[in-house]
Amino acid sequence: MLSFENDYSEGAHEKILQRFMETNLEKVSGYGSDPYCESAKQKIREACECPQADVYFLTGGTQTNAVVISSMLESYEGVVAAQTGHVACHEAGAIEYSGHKVITVPQYKGKIKVEDLKNCLKTFWDDESHEHMAFPGMVYISHPTEYGTLYTKAELEEISSVCRSYNIPLFLDGARLGYGLMSEETDVTLPMIAKYCDVFYIGGTKVGALCGEAVVFSGNRTPKHFLTLIKQRGALLAKGRLLGIQFDTLFTDNLYFEISRHAIAMADYLKKGLAEKGCRFYLDSPTNQQFVILENRKMTELKKEVKFSFWEKYDGNHTVVRFATSWATKKEEIDQLLDLF
Amino acid sequence: MLSFENDYSEGAHEKILQRFMETNLEKVSGYGSDPYCESAKQKIREACECPQADVYFLTGGTQTNAVVISSMLESYEGVVAAQTGHVACHEAGAIEYSGHKVITVPQYKGKIKVEDLKNCLKTFWDDESHEHMAFPGMVYISHPTEYGTLYTKAELEEISSVCRSYNIPLFLDGARLGYGLMSEETDVTLPMIAKYCDVFYIGGTKVGALCGEAVVFSGNRTPKHFLTLIKQRGALLAKGRLLGIQFDTLFTDNLYFEISRHAIAMADYLKKGLAEKGCRFYLDSPTNQQFVILENRKMTELKKEVKFSFWEKYDGNHTVVRFATSWATKKEEIDQLLDLF
Amino acid sequence: MLSFENDYSEGAHEKILQRFMETNLEKVSGYGSDPYCESAKQKIREACECPQADVYFLTGGTQTNAVVISSMLESYEGVVAAQTGHVACHEAGAIEYSGHKVITVPQYKGKIKVEDLKNCLKTFWDDESHEHMAFPGMVYISHPTEYGTLYTKAELEEISSVCRSYNIPLFLDGARLGYGLMSEETDVTLPMIAKYCDVFYIGGTKVGALCGEAVVFSGNRTPKHFLTLIKQRGALLAKGRLLGIQFDTLFTDNLYFEISRHAIAMADYLKKGLAEKGCRFYLDSPTNQQFVILENRKMTELKKEVKFSFWEKYDGNHTVVRFATSWATKKEEIDQLLDLF
Amino acid sequence: MLSFENDYSEGAHEKILQRFMETNLEKVSGYGSDPYCESAKQKIREACECPQADVYFLTGGTQTNAVVISSMLESYEGVVAAQTGHVACHEAGAIEYSGHKVITVPQYKGKIKVEDLKNCLKTFWDDESHEHMAFPGMVYISHPTEYGTLYTKAELEEISSVCRSYNIPLFLDGARLGYGLMSEETDVTLPMIAKYCDVFYIGGTKVGALCGEAVVFSGNRTPKHFLTLIKQRGALLAKGRLLGIQFDTLFTDNLYFEISRHAIAMADYLKKGLAEKGCRFYLDSPTNQQFVILENRKMTELKKEVKFSFWEKYDGNHTVVRFATSWATKKEEIDQLLDLF
Repeated sequence: MLSFENDYSEGAHEKILQRFMETNLEKVSGYGSDPYCESAKQKIREACECPQADVYFLTGGTQTNAVVISSMLESYEGVVAAQTGHVACHEAGAIEYSGHKVITVPQYKGKIKVEDLKNCLKTFWDDESHEHMAFPGMVYISHPTEYGTLYTKAELEEISSVCRSYNIPLFLDGARLGYGLMSEETDVTLPMIAKYCDVFYIGGTKVGALCGEAVVFSGNRTPKHFLTLIKQRGALLAKGRLLGIQFDTLFTDNLYFEISRHAIAMADYLKKGLAEKGCRFYLDSPTNQQFVILENRKMTELKKEVKFSFWEKYDGNHTVVRFATSWATKKEEIDQLLDLF
Repeated sequence: MLSFENDYSEGAHEKILQRFMETNLEKVSGYGSDPYCESAKQKIREACECPQADVYFLTGGTQTNAVVISSMLESYEGVVAAQTGHVACHEAGAIEYSGHKVITVPQYKGKIKVEDLKNCLKTFWDDESHEHMAFPGMVYISHPTEYGTLYTKAELEEISSVCRSYNIPLFLDGARLGYGLMSEETDVTLPMIAKYCDVFYIGGTKVGALCGEAVVFSGNRTPKHFLTLIKQRGALLAKGRLLGIQFDTLFTDNLYFEISRHAIAMADYLKKGLAEKGCRFYLDSPTNQQFVILENRKMTELKKEVKFSFWEKYDGNHTVVRFATSWATKKEEIDQLLDLF
Repeated sequence: MLSFENDYSEGAHEKILQRFMETNLEKVSGYGSDPYCESAKQKIREACECPQADVYFLTGGTQTNAVVISSMLESYEGVVAAQTGHVACHEAGAIEYSGHKVITVPQYKGKIKVEDLKNCLKTFWDDESHEHMAFPGMVYISHPTEYGTLYTKAELEEISSVCRSYNIPLFLDGARLGYGLMSEETDVTLPMIAKYCDVFYIGGTKVGALCGEAVVFSGNRTPKHFLTLIKQRGALLAKGRLLGIQFDTLFTDNLYFEISRHAIAMADYLKKGLAEKGCRFYLDSPTNQQFVILENRKMTELKKEVKFSFWEKYDGNHTVVRFATSWATKKEEIDQLLDLF
Repeated sequence: MLSFENDYSEGAHEKILQRFMETNLEKVSGYGSDPYCESAKQKIREACECPQADVYFLTGGTQTNAVVISSMLESYEGVVAAQTGHVACHEAGAIEYSGHKVITVPQYKGKIKVEDLKNCLKTFWDDESHEHMAFPGMVYISHPTEYGTLYTKAELEEISSVCRSYNIPLFLDGARLGYGLMSEETDVTLPMIAKYCDVFYIGGTKVGALCGEAVVFSGNRTPKHFLTLIKQRGALLAKGRLLGIQFDTLFTDNLYFEISRHAIAMADYLKKGLAEKGCRFYLDSPTNQQFVILENRKMTELKKEVKFSFWEKYDGNHTVVRFATSWATKKEEIDQLLDLF
């Protein structure tokens, strides 16, 4: 059966598996102190043009968000996020489980507006009773967002500037970062992200790895004793090599970017194909997630042949669904999908 | 200086202080096991017409909300509340500190609508990925609300019925419950609240006590080992008599209701007076908090003579401010206030 | 019935109740910003000879321990305490509920030894895998201890010096501090405690107040936004006056010290009386708690006439029990008790 | 360089990597709902002779302990463990981070004694003030222990029986379970563990997997909505296949047991060799961890040629060190090690 359900349906890029094989019987030390982690960190620092960055590897997105946010916030602080931000709604309350409030601001196709952010921060600090409220202590954005959209360089710069004027860190969730960076419609590069954010993560799970996210503290705000904090949150792997080897491979010979570019090329091909078939798009996504408005009858019919994600009801007769491409998507699959329209 | 800043500016009703004096040197056992706590509990059960209710005394509103919510929710659950609910915005993240999400629904003059609640619950359970979200595990309403408004009996019944159909408890924050029950515009009684809610609290701090809130578990859902949970959350007083004597006094000879009725009478008098002076009200509040739209110049001038609370900006030239009456408000004070208009 | 069960059986010193009456209808601002809190803080700073100290009022001992410890520790840190320390065993897991480990060291009549403390800290930092363990981030001692014993000035100085060499705060739980300071056998004064500790609390609940503990941050380590942290932990009273008036009264005209001295005089009278009757003491306590080894038959008989606390089994035929005096104990009561031996 | 540092120095058993390759491009659903997870669960149920067991896969040991313990305990409960239990000392306070106390009992070569456990439980329930303490709500044992020792069937049965008489679950940490089950000196089988425990985990990370532990709820006490609890604790992998494939491979054709038996054979060979060389053992370990008392000079010399773990100081001149074999240890390596003695 065809599947465009998500970008984590397959295993890992084959070069990763090859490296697992090649290095398998080497004895290396544990908990991320092995040479593969070191090498991967160095390559990531270089790709970010941020030689002083601290890099850590964690296993998944919710884990990374919870570890980073709970480690960087003071007890009296919450994290500001879009209403549709992953931390605000799809992480089973993991941020709150760590003791912190998610302070929501409006979303526009998944993005936050700098005006809303300014307003949120100003309102808080102007409020005479702000000591009775959770302090906005960090800003969280996802890039690409949950709707596949991207911040522009100018937007990122402005949001960063607001954060710095309030002396709070900007955290960018890059679960699908490769797909954002390789979009044809972006003016944002990895070094810019390292510059404008204080911390961000480079997603592996959705971009060719079996698991793994690379957290980059580019803003000199690495929490003290972060390894202990990771361990305490149940997020420290004994065999750190599992993550080190994967990111070392992904950041060798531009693999991460190449496979991301492939996913984008596939998404563009899909997008054009669907448009030619007369499909309506819910929004214009420049990345690997495409949101299409389907007639309910069409949707039911399609379900028999292909997997995709229900997104939300559009109206009585229509539904928004998502088709996702990935590093592993094949052109033939898209052709087969288009044939069904 | 005049003050209508809030309903907790004075100490306690004098009968409470008298009882402190009379009982002061009696040796009683600690942690709420004294005869005054017992007597107060019994009187509260009777006032609620709920003989099987479990009653506990805590010291303040935020503490009570945090203790009750964190004790009744499962780890995977959050509490549904209005966006303006006290737990959602003015408790410094106390609910999240206990590990739970506050799931917000729209507010209408501080109240939630049963349609929104139904929608929130249905959407959650219909969502195929609801296991990745915080479960709505309790509904929190305040009565009177933060805007002084009240639910009708019919509304309460409907909300209760929705909660029961989803088998989740309904929790009513009665920090100002007396002022709600004694409003001339309510059809809700204390026994009704005991019937429609699973748990609620009868506010003492704002209604004549020095401190204290009486939590009533009327719905057979008292958390197991609740005393230990209270202690663990730092909310157990060694000298439980402090709370027992206060509630025993408040629930003797209808004192709680009489002093509440007085506050309402004062609020009505204030309301009429302000209306006669041509004041505009932000909303029609039937309880002890009155929200008035003042011209900014008027507000600044008034501030020199009287304390009141800033509520929110109305427009460029106007501000919403709050005047609160209480069990201790004197008619002369209102006359003096009105003279300033 | 006679009672030597504990030091919180009665209400409050009558001067406190008088002050409640006198100030009752004054309108003061909330949350600890009233003039009584200010005045009490100033008097406490003077008594501590520590003009820069930050003082806050909380309601009870477990609450105070949990608020102070959880606010001062980093997430990766735990608190070092004696095995018999109140935080280690009699607070229903309140410290752990706040996310922190209690790291225990041996106890000697309730006290910790500086050698054990040094060893605990050195062992931790020498351990190559210490990043996989909870860091010792604070030292907690109680004075008087749970066994009524006291640290000497020299011991306090040494413990303080160890803490400072590791740059971790020393926290002294003074739930019964008055009884320690007024002991005839102590060379420790309040200003010394302020000097050697970074934070400590002056107990009110067990020393003449209805409720209340005064937290003194004497070591320039007050947590940022401590008011918000208090609120978040459910420990902020709206009517802060309740605590302010009590401590203002206790620290006026040396009341706190005088009533503590009375309790000590009563304890000494009891001690001598029991010794004359041939009673064996479990340990030599210089404060208001006296631990006596009773034959089980004697204990059972005594129980019919007087309340006291079971402490622990001594052997098959004997039990250790506790008799506590307090600010409210009368000489006649002791005479009556002694008559029963 | 030779290494006997631990049992997680290499990657994974080659059959696991082969299966990764073979299945890599299959599209499967996420979050543990893939066919490999299903198949692995079924095989584990069969190996446990426990058809009704619920099986879940997590990534590492500390994570598993924290997720299981925090999900099964009530808020007022702590977990009973040996002083040397992994949860008590080497998990960076992960259990306390989840809000729960670790209640320690004495250890004997890493094991707890049923008498101490009985005493701990009885003392708690007999204590009149037990409501002021953390309740013992679960018993945690590790098998093999941190010292490589094993419980006998009789011991396991007795501990289980005590737990059941107090109606609290018994949780067995099987991070190295394979090495315990394949020891020549054990009378404990996997079905027995399933029978005597309510929950346990079968360690993968230290027994041939890249990562992964299989949690088995054999006692009908699976926490409600456990998937959500896993997600909330940051422990849910998007690509559940990573764990499913590994455990499916390990439980195919007895691989898990065969590679464990190999590690034990290697440990026995090492043990005999060291004994012949006149080495003194710290204790008699029947599993893959061997604890040897080395003269410090010998230790320093050895360190140049081989990696091993410092365990603890023995006396002024001697140190206890650990040599660990694993599924990947080669006989030649042991011969080389022995040549150094």
